[in-house]
Amino acid sequence: MLTPDTLPTFQRALREASLDGWLLFDFRGTNPIAATLAGLDGFVSRRIFVWVPTQGTPVAITHAIEQLPWHRWPVAWRKEVYSSWRALEGYVRDLVGGKRVAMEYSPGDAVPYVDRVPAGVVELVRAAGAEVVTSGELISRLYAVWTPAQLASHRQAARVVADVARDAFAFVDERLRAGAAVHEHEVQARIRDGFTRAGLETDHGPNVSAGANAANPHYEPSADAPRRIATGELLLIDLWAHEPGNPYADQTWMASVGAPNERAVRVWTAVRDARDAAIALLRERVNAGAPVRGGEADDAARAVIESAGYGQYFTHRTGHSIDARDLHGSGPHLDNLETREERLLLPGVGFSIEPGVYIPGEIGVRSEVNAYVGEGELVITPDDYQRDLIVIAGA
Amino acid sequence: MLTPDTLPTFQRALREASLDGWLLFDFRGTNPIAATLAGLDGFVSRRIFVWVPTQGTPVAITHAIEQLPWHRWPVAWRKEVYSSWRALEGYVRDLVGGKRVAMEYSPGDAVPYVDRVPAGVVELVRAAGAEVVTSGELISRLYAVWTPAQLASHRQAARVVADVARDAFAFVDERLRAGAAVHEHEVQARIRDGFTRAGLETDHGPNVSAGANAANPHYEPSADAPRRIATGELLLIDLWAHEPGNPYADQTWMASVGAPNERAVRVWTAVRDARDAAIALLRERVNAGAPVRGGEADDAARAVIESAGYGQYFTHRTGHSIDARDLHGSGPHLDNLETREERLLLPGVGFSIEPGVYIPGEIGVRSEVNAYVGEGELVITPDDYQRDLIVIAGA
Repeated sequence: MLTPDTLPTFQRALREASLDGWLLFDFRGTNPIAATLAGLDGFVSRRIFVWVPTQGTPVAITHAIEQLPWHRWPVAWRKEVYSSWRALEGYVRDLVGGKRVAMEYSPGDAVPYVDRVPAGVVELVRAAGAEVVTSGELISRLYAVWTPAQLASHRQAARVVADVARDAFAFVDERLRAGAAVHEHEVQARIRDGFTRAGLETDHGPNVSAGANAANPHYEPSADAPRRIATGELLLIDLWAHEPGNPYADQTWMASVGAPNERAVRVWTAVRDARDAAIALLRERVNAGAPVRGGEADDAARAVIESAGYGQYFTHRTGHSIDARDLHGSGPHLDNLETREERLLLPGVGFSIEPGVYIPGEIGVRSEVNAYVGEGELVITPDDYQRDLIVIAGA
Repeated sequence: MLTPDTLPTFQRALREASLDGWLLFDFRGTNPIAATLAGLDGFVSRRIFVWVPTQGTPVAITHAIEQLPWHRWPVAWRKEVYSSWRALEGYVRDLVGGKRVAMEYSPGDAVPYVDRVPAGVVELVRAAGAEVVTSGELISRLYAVWTPAQLASHRQAARVVADVARDAFAFVDERLRAGAAVHEHEVQARIRDGFTRAGLETDHGPNVSAGANAANPHYEPSADAPRRIATGELLLIDLWAHEPGNPYADQTWMASVGAPNERAVRVWTAVRDARDAAIALLRERVNAGAPVRGGEADDAARAVIESAGYGQYFTHRTGHSIDARDLHGSGPHLDNLETREERLLLPGVGFSIEPGVYIPGEIGVRSEVNAYVGEGELVITPDDYQRDLIVIAGA
């Protein structure tokens, strides 16, 4: 959030991007980034702008009938109140005329997640004499990055999440060795219990999918439709949790119930090697202090799966941003499939790396770790991420 | 909603607007018009388009992992499924290249309510070779207009609402004549009971504001902070209700408790005459079959209040769209204050006419009727709308 304390950080980022300022815009909640950064408390039904200049103090342009949501706005900062479109456009003109201005705009909609300002509003700002550029990298630096304390919390959560995953497989193993039946939803419940005992929180899930269920990206286990886990199939566990107020750890682990068949090994190997190709590219660039974009890591992982002949079955992006607030964050994703992710993976951002192969009705394999871009160092969590298929005793 | 039954109506409107088609776009619910017209059932997290061509059948561009929300899409119509941005952009190019296309776009953000497509998406569509124009009038014709049955229902609701308002003032009169206290929230409760007895529904409210409370646009009466209605003040009642599934009737009535003072009469007269100036302009144009824009009706009402010296206290638009679904609808508003309402008041649209004067801490006056644009005829509801201040016995 923009406050007198955080303003110097914002202005340093603006200066380094050779911008005159950042112009936040929201209308009826369509730009959550703007509403959060402005510290708006509650819904506004009329248009609002916040001008964050590279030098000087911010200015809010607010509507006369909606003053209450602005109660956090510092009294020392200017707040203009408008009723008419003439006044609104006049304030915008005065503030940004002749300036180089970042907005939540993505040329050609390359990154829909940062393309939040309607076309007519960008026209209005351009007509005021401003040059409009994307705020993509500013969002990464000022909204998505983790603090060192958040990184430490994430690492701890990642250790617990990995332990809970291993415990879940051990639970299946034990049940099958005892000749008992075990169902997906029972494993799901055990994982949730594990999180609760460890003091972690999660929003929903986890996903526990056996056999062909893992090939369906929307499958969720349910006690209403119990699915017994059988010998000869793969078991996918995708689980995510975090310490309250801190970034998520989000991992996917794979096991084979009984010895894996040749096809399962082939698909697993392609997925693991794709994951490791993305890690290798990222590590090389980050270690060298060289820039790397989210789309490039996606290309690196996808190339491995394509050369193994499974390209058409890798139907999602390689990874998603994990920011300090959200599991699916606002920072750069590893994506050149769904979107053209042109944003740099700047120091401080976190994200998942999770290639997968889904052959409908047959087999689904995903491997997921998380990454954090440090200064000259790429952190992968958990430390002991999966190298080989876990093998569980068959029934 | 777009269906094989409604498609001919859509295509007639497109033809008459000299368009090649309408390109609906939604991303994460930021364009509710698109999601409703496309009949989407549930949230979609990826970008979607629907192409409604002037000739031929519609085409949906849908994301591979989000097929369920499309279960209402007619099987006879084309539905493309994409995973990659290359495929998405390819479909858009093939569908709209070289075409004249309407989108939820408002040049210069003149009408924010129809400016729903991000700047980068409009660039993407233009790069595909399309000319993009606003869908503003299409929304009025295909989304906002009332059917004859809905008009009949609205007229009936308007009669009941007016009766309930008069009953509320009679209730205050009776209590005061009996020397008893009466509070705003008691009047509110009586109005809600009246709606229920008459089989009308409402979402919240009504607003019952005495004296200076009526000058505060956000004031709401409450049993927790009872406000006794006193002699010598004005009483504002703004109430709205509808028959289930039909358009709202939304009215504001004003009474004086005891004889009104000179200032109250002066403000009331300015507000009433402003309302009637908007009605007169609209009636003249509609009767003549001449075009009239929402902004013009706002100008007509505002001129009266400005010439009475209260211009700065008329802080909102003159009226809002009432469509078949919503009290605050998606059709043209009477507004040249908050926004530049350039849309025509086409046959079939309904809206409120409700100028007001709010002098903070002192007095608030509003008068509200509803209007429907028929073919060559302007319908005002209720039939017997308020001419003079109602006078209630003082205590």
